[in-house]
Amino acid sequence: MAADTSSGPRSTHVLADLWGIEPAVLRDAGRIESLLREAADAARARVLAAHFHHFGGEGGVTGVLLLAESHLSIHTWPEVGLAAVDAFMCGEARAEVAVEWLRASLGGELRTHTVVRRGG
Amino acid sequence: MAADTSSGPRSTHVLADLWGIEPAVLRDAGRIESLLREAADAARARVLAAHFHHFGGEGGVTGVLLLAESHLSIHTWPEVGLAAVDAFMCGEARAEVAVEWLRASLGGELRTHTVVRRGG
Repeated sequence: MAADTSSGPRSTHVLADLWGIEPAVLRDAGRIESLLREAADAARARVLAAHFHHFGGEGGVTGVLLLAESHLSIHTWPEVGLAAVDAFMCGEARAEVAVEWLRASLGGELRTHTVVRRGG
Repeated sequence: MAADTSSGPRSTHVLADLWGIEPAVLRDAGRIESLLREAADAARARVLAAHFHHFGGEGGVTGVLLLAESHLSIHTWPEVGLAAVDAFMCGEARAEVAVEWLRASLGGELRTHTVVRRGG
């Protein structure tokens, strides 16, 4: 039987490219994880699981927090000072707050910003 | 010293809401993980880590594959037959292929589809 598709949970998905960040920060998986946990907390999201990976040497970090409210991810390219962030949150959690927290704490410049309403 | 921000790695981020999917499938974390792994393989992406969580009972699944090329995530709402997917891939990996694989294998109808070029 097909499910009712007439309505769904409203969620917000924010994609942000942050530029001009110190390369050393973008290679530090521990620091990046701490900042994402702080951002999730600021957004009132609850962390279910975390995984962060440093590609080694001069490489970047890729990581995600799986949330009760969906997810918060980051992928970094230290060679160009870029952090690509996405925050997908439903319920009372505030995806925009998480992204703004990361922009401020990473010291980056928000150059591309996309907000998509999901599950409408 | 600020990093050079004049250019960056080109990536594609695809967001897709898939509707009309069997609720039983959307509660089965093992099956959802298998389908995402197949989708990543079809897109020529390499899995670094996986985490899938079932909220229990009639609840949905939230999960992510962390990829060498970024990530592939899913969040499901069985009560309305919805799977919200996002595929963020750089390099040779094909985010669109992963999303189309999931649409076909989940038997869903693609109702909202957003493609964002990242890190341009």
